[in-house]
Parts: sequence; C-alpha cells; structure tokens
Amino acid sequence: RDTLARFVDSQWFQNLVVAVILANGVVLGLETYEDRFVWLDRNWMLIEGCFLTFFVLELTLRILARGVVFFRDVWNWFDLVVVGISLIPLAGGFAVLRLVRVLRLLRLVSVLPSLRYIVDALFRSVPGLGTVIALLFVVMYTAAIMGEQLFGEISPQYFGNLGTTLYTLFMLLTMENWPDISDSVIEDAPYAWIFFVSYIVVSAFIVLNLIIGVIVTTMEE
Amino acid sequence: RDTLARFVDSQWFQNLVVAVILANGVVLGLETYEDRFVWLDRNWMLIEGCFLTFFVLELTLRILARGVVFFRDVWNWFDLVVVGISLIPLAGGFAVLRLVRVLRLLRLVSVLPSLRYIVDALFRSVPGLGTVIALLFVVMYTAAIMGEQLFGEISPQYFGNLGTTLYTLFMLLTMENWPDISDSVIEDAPYAWIFFVSYIVVSAFIVLNLIIGVIVTTMEE
Amino acid sequence: RDTLARFVDSQWFQNLVVAVILANGVVLGLETYEDRFVWLDRNWMLIEGCFLTFFVLELTLRILARGVVFFRDVWNWFDLVVVGISLIPLAGGFAVLRLVRVLRLLRLVSVLPSLRYIVDALFRSVPGLGTVIALLFVVMYTAAIMGEQLFGEISPQYFGNLGTTLYTLFMLLTMENWPDISDSVIEDAPYAWIFFVSYIVVSAFIVLNLIIGVIVTTMEE
Amino acid sequence: RDTLARFVDSQWFQNLVVAVILANGVVLGLETYEDRFVWLDRNWMLIEGCFLTFFVLELTLRILARGVVFFRDVWNWFDLVVVGISLIPLAGGFAVLRLVRVLRLLRLVSVLPSLRYIVDALFRSVPGLGTVIALLFVVMYTAAIMGEQLFGEISPQYFGNLGTTLYTLFMLLTMENWPDISDSVIEDAPYAWIFFVSYIVVSAFIVLNLIIGVIVTTMEE
Ligand code: NA
Ligand code: NA
Repeated sequence: RDTLARFVDSQWFQNLVVAVILANGVVLGLETYEDRFVWLDRNWMLIEGCFLTFFVLELTLRILARGVVFFRDVWNWFDLVVVGISLIPLAGGFAVLRLVRVLRLLRLVSVLPSLRYIVDALFRSVPGLGTVIALLFVVMYTAAIMGEQLFGEISPQYFGNLGTTLYTLFMLLTMENWPDISDSVIEDAPYAWIFFVSYIVVSAFIVLNLIIGVIVTTMEE
Repeated sequence: RDTLARFVDSQWFQNLVVAVILANGVVLGLETYEDRFVWLDRNWMLIEGCFLTFFVLELTLRILARGVVFFRDVWNWFDLVVVGISLIPLAGGFAVLRLVRVLRLLRLVSVLPSLRYIVDALFRSVPGLGTVIALLFVVMYTAAIMGEQLFGEISPQYFGNLGTTLYTLFMLLTMENWPDISDSVIEDAPYAWIFFVSYIVVSAFIVLNLIIGVIVTTMEE
Repeated sequence: RDTLARFVDSQWFQNLVVAVILANGVVLGLETYEDRFVWLDRNWMLIEGCFLTFFVLELTLRILARGVVFFRDVWNWFDLVVVGISLIPLAGGFAVLRLVRVLRLLRLVSVLPSLRYIVDALFRSVPGLGTVIALLFVVMYTAAIMGEQLFGEISPQYFGNLGTTLYTLFMLLTMENWPDISDSVIEDAPYAWIFFVSYIVVSAFIVLNLIIGVIVTTMEE
Repeated sequence: RDTLARFVDSQWFQNLVVAVILANGVVLGLETYEDRFVWLDRNWMLIEGCFLTFFVLELTLRILARGVVFFRDVWNWFDLVVVGISLIPLAGGFAVLRLVRVLRLLRLVSVLPSLRYIVDALFRSVPGLGTVIALLFVVMYTAAIMGEQLFGEISPQYFGNLGTTLYTLFMLLTMENWPDISDSVIEDAPYAWIFFVSYIVVSAFIVLNLIIGVIVTTMEE
C-alpha cells in the first residue's frame, strides 16, 4: 500500500491524469463540430469507453492507496459521483447522460492542488455571506409577489407567475435590459417606475454589501 | 408580565412566527399560479383571515409583554403599520390592499435578529453618504433640465418633460441601453454625444464615490 | 466692509441664496411641462429677470465684502462666469443661452460648503489618475484607427471615421450593447471577435486600475 | 558612444520622438476621413516613408548608443518588431500591413517612462491571477461544451459549435444582452434558466475574485 500511495502521489501520475482530462476535453470540444469530425461521433462509444476505463482505474488505485481516508475528502466524493454516473448504461435519456460526462472536465479542479485551493477558498467565503444572501432572497421574493400582483396581467411574459417574475427580478438584479422590461408595463401602469427604481436601488445596495463581504473575507485569508 | 416576556422571547415563539410568515409567503406564491390553485383563490378570505388573526395576536402578546418599551423600537412600528393596514376592510382598492399585505413578508427581517442587524447596518451607512447623494441629485436635476431643453422636441419619449428625463437619466446612471437613448437623438442633434459622454463619466464618477463611501463605512463596523 | 462681510457670511444670507437657487430650479422644472404651465412660459422674461437681478446683486455684495480676495477662489470665478453669461442679451441663439442659465443651478455646489468640499475632493483625486487616463486614451485612439481600417467599410454606422469609432469604443468601454456592435461586422469579418474581446478585456483592465486609483486616493484623505 | 548616449537620453530627443509619434497619430486619424483629406491618401507613400525613416533612424541611434544592453529590455524589442514589420514592402495584404503600422502609436508607451511604468505594473499584476484565470477557463470550457450539447440545435446562432459557444459565454461573462441569448432558447428548453443563472452567478463570482486579486496586488505596490 505504501508503494501504491507513493505512485498515486507522484508528480508523474498527476501529470498523466491531467493530460487524460485535457485530452477528454479536446475530444469533447472537437465533437461539437459535428460535420467536420464525423469519425469522432461514430467512434464515440469506443473513445468514451477508453476514457471511462482510465478514470475508473485511476480512482480504484487512489482508493486502494488511501483506504478509508479517501472517503473523508469531499473532493474525492465529487470524483466518485462524476465518474460513477458515467457508468450508468446509455439507455433512454442519452443527451442527459452525455451532459453528466462533461462534468468530468471539472475534475481538473480536484486533481490540480492550486485550483482546488482557490475553489476551497471561494466556498469558505460563502457561509459568511449567508445572512446577506438570505436578505436578498427575502427582498426578491416579496418584490416578486408584488410584481406579479401589479403587472401579472399587463405583461405576462415577464410577470406571469412567481417563477417568471423571480427570473425577471434576477435580470433586474444584473440590471440587464431592464428598460425593455419596464417599457412593457409602463404604458398601462405609469407609476411602475417607482417599483423598478426602488427595486434596482435596493437590490444593487444589497449586492454591493455582498461584494464587500466577499472582499473582506477574501482579504482576511 | 414576566412569564409573558419569557414566552415572547423564547426560541419556540420566534420559530413559530417565522414559520407562519414563511407559510404566508408560500400561500402568496402559490396564488400567483391562478389556474392551478383555484381553491386557494376562492378561499382567500378565510386563509388571509387566519394569517391576520395570528399576526394581530402575536403583536398583542408582544405589546403586553414589553409595555411602553415596545413603541421605542422602529422595527416594532414597522410591524404595527404593516399588520394594521391589513386590518382595513377590503372595499374599493382591492389590488392595492392585497399589495400591502405582501409587505408582511418583510416582517421576516424584523423577527430574525441576524437579518435585522444587517438591515440596521445598511441604514446606518446611509447618512454618511448624504452629501454625495445630494450632489448626485443636483447633477441629475441640472442635467435633466438641460436634456429636456436640448432633446425634448426631438425625442419626447425619453426627454418629454422633467419626470421622463429624470427617469431617462436614471437609465443612463445604470448605463443600461444608453446607446438606444443616444441613437434616438443623435441624428437631429449630432453633438448630443457630448451630453451623453460627459453625463455618463460624471455620474459614474459620483456613483463610484458613493460605493467607496459604502465600503469605508461598512468596513469601519 | 466688515459689516458687509459679516452679512455675506451669515447663515441667514446663505440660506436665502440656497432658497433662491432652489426656487429657480423649481421654475425651470415646471417650465418643462409646457402645456400645463403656459403662464410660466409667457412670463419667462420677467421671472428670469427677477432671478438674474438677485444673483447679480448677491455677487456684487460678495465682491464688495471680500475685495480682491474674491477673485482668488476658483469657485467664485465659476459663479461669475455662469451669472455673467446670463447677462448677454437674448438675441439669436435663444436655446443655447437658456441652456447656460440652467448651469446656475450648479451654484448650489459653490454655495453649500459640504457639497463644495466633496467636489473639491473629487477634483483633487483626478491628477493622480493622469497617467492611467493617458494610457486609456492611447489605447482607445490606437484601437479606433485599427477599428476604422478594419470595419470602416463593413459597418460605417459604428466605424465610419475616427470620431464615430471613438464613440463606438466608448460604448464598448461601458460594455453597453457591445454584442449589437460586434453583430454588425462579424458576418463579413469573422475574426472580429479577436478585436472586440481583446479591446474589452484590455479596456476593462485599465478602467479597473482607474477605479483602484480613485479608491486609493479617496481613502488616503 | 558617450555623447550619443547623452543625446539619446536627453529630454529634447524624447520630446522630439513623442512629437513625431503624435504627428503620426494625427495623420492616421485624418486619413479616416477619406473624403475630406484626399491629398493625404494620395501622398500616403511619401508621408509613411518620412515617418518610417525617422523611426528607423531613431532606433539605430538608440542601438548605437546602448550597444548590447539595448536588447535586454523587452520594450526595446517591442519597438524593434513594430518598426521592423513596417519595413516589409507593401505588396499583397495591404490592409493588414497598414494595420500593423498603427501599432507604432503604442510606442508612446515605450517612449514615455510614466506610461511604461504603469503598463509594467499592470503586467506584473497578471501572474498572481494565473490560477483564477485558469479556473475561469476551466469553468467556461466545461460550460461551453454543456451549452453546445444542450442548445446547439435550438439556437445555432449562439451555441452552434465550441467557438461560437465560448464567444456567447464571454458575452454572458460581461452580462451584456444575456436576456436576448436566453430568450433564444427558453421556449424550447424551459429549464435553460438554470444554466444561465448558475453560469452568471458562478462566473461573476470568479470575476469578482479576479478583481479582488488585482486590487490586492496593485495596492501592495
Ligand atoms: Na448592459
Ligand atoms: Na450592462
């Protein structure tokens, strides 16, 4: 087991895994040009099989080398789930299964310590933002119900029901194309500007506090 | 009164109130899907009555437990007003009254200390920004009157009168779709770009100082 | 002269001037609703005359009270110029002259010490940004000439000549509606994405450094 | 060689070079107004020849003055390459060659020490951002392949192949007009909002960390 652990920890092994993930990425990228790389699409089962075999083998080696400790790291669980789902036979929802296989590219993060470290830091900065995010949700939900009651019949495209309105309020949060949204209701509801201006100001203010929170927690590290 | 105060302060009581507010939120959310939840709409008076009774009872208990102290907290006044307005009988402006009832969801902030603390902090950071906001208003107002005089006849949609122009300048402040606005006047007023570029640069500069102000006051806490 | 100086420095005098400027602002605002306030438009000469007389009187008092010192403050020169131009008789370019009179509203900044202080601080933070702004200009100018040479014939609307292209690059700087601009050329110049992506990344990077410069100089105060 | 070095280092020489680069910029700017400055276009070969001769002479002097040390500075290599390419005779790809000549305007940065210093600082801040940029690429690449598989057939304009999808994801990164992009697929793929909202949130979060990285490294200087 010690020899195995040394092998699994070696720079050589890590480079090989990174290379295979990158190769998998290139193949997936070429497949999007369906007309030019027909042979790739036709041999998809074979290529996918090779990659999958490699990843199963790699994870098996890692589990054998580490033992129970392997299952204590949340990143290893990510690897297990992502590779595990790829093993489900390809029946029925073909498209959905292909989609999950793409997630294997994110294993680059779990394999490279430097990326892993950054993502860990990103996740660690989230809990401190919990209450601000909760406040944002309370404001968005309340505004969504008000928006639906105010404009639901005037502009069902944007304010048809709670789901649609929440999506519209997310657009307003990014401020993207908000004049288009307000134009769709302002003729029938001339006082709609109060809703839009106050929502934009309040939500931008909360998002600003969210950003400040990220800056503070990131700088403390 | 001591027993009452202990009851009102208990975690159990707070959780109950939070649960009822959340339930109220879910009901209001389901009501936006009018076709699928017809029974909700038909029993609206009954459901609303239950929620209202609960909130009136809750506030009565709080007032009895706290006494005069209750009226010293601005959050309690928010609770009183929001629940009080819901008590106005439902005649005439049905839609408007329904709207106010939605504001009861914001009581989640007044009930949960952590959210309350954040909102208090947000409000405390505003007064320090007073002069910058005043400057922004002076610039916007002056630019609005100039804009109306310059482009009022060319593009009444955006610069028709003071109100419309102020709304347009708010769009320019968020920079959203400003090329559309400038396109509507630039053919008849080729030098309009001076107005737009200088307003965008100046207002962005003031907003930047506003943001810096928020960062400084927030970090000082 | 001492009595005059005390009078001019009194809170009472300052409040009066602020009140008159605000009144002037309200009148200018009402005038934008031409249909509803016809009497304002008809008595415009009279009202404008009253305001102008007041401001001329105010500045005369200030000059008499301060003497030569008055002309050492750049804000006083602003007051002088803005009121002085209003004295030019109203012939020919009526619209342009009315426009200058609107600038008198900005005197609110020169009259109120708190606003004056902020604007002074804003201006003081600019020189330190000189080189970054110069860099931005060099990059924009070079990109403008390249853009005109590349896309001038494909999309004359956005890249017709140097002026138009600089304006387009300002839009790209605010990132506003840039997909519309790139769509107008990408069919005939499929490699245009290199131009747009690199310009957006580089200019956003320089603007970010500009913002950091503002933050640093503002926080040092 | 010492006299030459003193000459090349003199303020007088630097000012001359800056003046010639600026003149070159003005000429290039005027050329974009083709109709009004026909004589410029007709004498283009002559004018370009003059500028080119000056720059070749200037660089020769610099090389003679500095000797081998000249080739140790990366900025000097930039000067050499940019002027060198201009020497290639003007056959065939006329437009492309003209384009490279425009890059000579960027020599303003290499000639003026203050601009040079800022750009050096900008470049020095990049390596520290390496891993965050790598993470952004991994996320964008994975999202691109998922996007192509999900929406490639519904909206080939935005998700046709890997290249197009990466360009679309860059738009989403700047958040510009993202509602237009999501509108093009949301009818046929109602659950597309999950893709857009999560990509926008995740990428904005990574970009925020990129910005924080720039702030930290810039402030450390
Ligand atoms: Na936008
Ligand atoms: Na935008």
